[in-house]
Amino acid sequence: MASPTPKAITSSSSQPSSGSNPQQQAGLDASRLTYNFTTTPSPVPDEVSANRGDLTVATDHMITATWDISTGWARPELKPYGPLQLSPAASCLHYATECFEGLKAYRGYDGKLRLFRPDHNTTRMRLSAHRVSLPTFDPTELAKLIKILCAVDCPRWLPQDRTGSFLYIRPTMIGTHAQLGVQSPKQALLYIMLAFIPRLDSPAGGMRLLTSPQDTVRSWVGGFGYAKVGANYGPSLLAGRDALREGFHQTLWLYGQSGECTEAGGSNFFVVWRRRGDGKKEVVTAPLDDKIILDGVTRRSCLEILRVRMGGEVEVTEHKYTIGELFEAHEQGRILEAFVTGTAYFICPVSQIQHNGKNIHIPVGHDGKPGDITGRVKGWIHDIMYGRQQHPWGVVIPEGQAL
Amino acid sequence: MASPTPKAITSSSSQPSSGSNPQQQAGLDASRLTYNFTTTPSPVPDEVSANRGDLTVATDHMITATWDISTGWARPELKPYGPLQLSPAASCLHYATECFEGLKAYRGYDGKLRLFRPDHNTTRMRLSAHRVSLPTFDPTELAKLIKILCAVDCPRWLPQDRTGSFLYIRPTMIGTHAQLGVQSPKQALLYIMLAFIPRLDSPAGGMRLLTSPQDTVRSWVGGFGYAKVGANYGPSLLAGRDALREGFHQTLWLYGQSGECTEAGGSNFFVVWRRRGDGKKEVVTAPLDDKIILDGVTRRSCLEILRVRMGGEVEVTEHKYTIGELFEAHEQGRILEAFVTGTAYFICPVSQIQHNGKNIHIPVGHDGKPGDITGRVKGWIHDIMYGRQQHPWGVVIPEGQAL
Repeated sequence: MASPTPKAITSSSSQPSSGSNPQQQAGLDASRLTYNFTTTPSPVPDEVSANRGDLTVATDHMITATWDISTGWARPELKPYGPLQLSPAASCLHYATECFEGLKAYRGYDGKLRLFRPDHNTTRMRLSAHRVSLPTFDPTELAKLIKILCAVDCPRWLPQDRTGSFLYIRPTMIGTHAQLGVQSPKQALLYIMLAFIPRLDSPAGGMRLLTSPQDTVRSWVGGFGYAKVGANYGPSLLAGRDALREGFHQTLWLYGQSGECTEAGGSNFFVVWRRRGDGKKEVVTAPLDDKIILDGVTRRSCLEILRVRMGGEVEVTEHKYTIGELFEAHEQGRILEAFVTGTAYFICPVSQIQHNGKNIHIPVGHDGKPGDITGRVKGWIHDIMYGRQQHPWGVVIPEGQAL
Repeated sequence: MASPTPKAITSSSSQPSSGSNPQQQAGLDASRLTYNFTTTPSPVPDEVSANRGDLTVATDHMITATWDISTGWARPELKPYGPLQLSPAASCLHYATECFEGLKAYRGYDGKLRLFRPDHNTTRMRLSAHRVSLPTFDPTELAKLIKILCAVDCPRWLPQDRTGSFLYIRPTMIGTHAQLGVQSPKQALLYIMLAFIPRLDSPAGGMRLLTSPQDTVRSWVGGFGYAKVGANYGPSLLAGRDALREGFHQTLWLYGQSGECTEAGGSNFFVVWRRRGDGKKEVVTAPLDDKIILDGVTRRSCLEILRVRMGGEVEVTEHKYTIGELFEAHEQGRILEAFVTGTAYFICPVSQIQHNGKNIHIPVGHDGKPGDITGRVKGWIHDIMYGRQQHPWGVVIPEGQAL
């Protein structure tokens, strides 16, 4: 065998040198945060007008932190929300070296501000970053930064009288290295923004899903469907747009020859049916083993809380099921409910699935209200998010103290 | 069947309205280009020092054009190369709504400036843009803009005495719509930059490839491997980095249970072997039917020119072949040459393939020079690019006239 000389290759291709000393890289450190408050705070819109326009309305501040392969993470900065300056050659604009998270800040009925299981988001973000060669970090430091941004902007943007409301939190990481060579970026930017997004959990008449086009597959075994990376989204927009034009809300993504049901749009998908055979009530969602679907925090929470609170009543399972099995169950009158889960859609009842021109209609309650089990799990988690029930999943954020 | 009401969905989800009138959208129009020349032109480095650093060195100018769903393409602008201002909520930073092209401007031995089959790049860019829900455009207008940028910057940056040299041209399109909702972007930016990139076609001893990790698949049937979209690159960097650390230059991407050979890094991959059975010399590369590999301009040109000029001598075929077949051919002494093709790597001889710890060593000429067929096709195309042979593929760019 020829003896490859990594050094020669490295120098000619200018890839990140394995010789760089990771010990010298500073870790992400929330305690080093600097504060630069806006001197021109924006007026805070109400929720409806904030979501009316075409542009996302963000709060006054964002937190940013830059990373360089030789020095590691610089001091994070809290500063006025505003445009980013990026080189036209920045890695993220060409090679999709980007990942994000989505979580919400909830204004509880008790006036307190809460996050919902934020550690799951920050841990997943580290995993997503790794999948697209972005730098690693300590998730607990990211969680601290998220909490600080909320503590700074939520008192005014999600005030105590807006109980039952939320803001959306978007931590993002992008490769900023200005290098057109295809390689792992040597510079990156982490930023966290807070913004309004619409409530999407109760469309009139329930959510309508159209199965994915025959020639389009969202994610595949060996790919990156499990990671929250930009690369999962852009290529899925066409199918979503076509579904919308045909009067549906989202794409139900099928996988493989057999048509396994995987995700719905950017959400996880659940069915409640009576099992073939014993007729027992079962809540089923696709499993994570193949790494083709996102390990959703809401998905996980639904499974866990259903197992604890309805374990005797219903089977709660993660296994593969196909669109064919759904149709069979539909024809036999065994489908009871269906819903999608995610941070943006929360827990949203599904009323229709169309596949190859044939329909499954699924009962939704009066005026699109969720069915029995969907409604119960939605209520339980809502109560935790908004502090009606004190629960470890609802993490209270102290306000006006972090500074 | 329930009667979906697309209008209600559209208004609540703020997706691009199908009611927008495409007739009112202006098309991309190179004749409307405005000129804003730099007043501080940069010193032009030599090729070696330009490629020595970690950052891409671009020329003095870039061309940009913005697009909005309601008005279409604005007047393109030629202006000083410099940073882009993007909203932190910009679609491209979250959802990989981004695509690009790569081509080169060649300074011919006759002093003339040429592009190589640029229409194939601009047509492919339209296809790539569509795949990630970016706006369409007339490829001939993009080609005109590329030529104008070359005409403006090449006289100084790729001067007449740098015969046999090139600059890299990177047309890019990104979704700029500042909207965190997952949807087709309603605003976009097209930009074209010109930059130095290193010569990659003659690594010492030939290019060494490591087959892709068992658990990683670059592209899949129903995906977007055929499109030059960012989403194909970020998720492939990890495997590339690992290959590099083990002393290889690129990943040889395998597909499916049988291990079909598809692409090498970001290049197409060719093998020259003696066919099993009749022993006839064959040049083979993976076919495009499955849409899992890029329809490379260099790939296509190699196939076409080999068919025309060596048709009697060798079979030139596009069909599937597996890593197992490569090993079998290797054991039987039937492998003659291998090479990768692409704009960045041009035509680069491959000397080694490692798979599961076992090696195929492929003869390369003296000092890593290409073998017989690789060398001939490389020479032919080189001569067209640099004007040694007048050929329709080599498109001469008039300089100092476009303004």
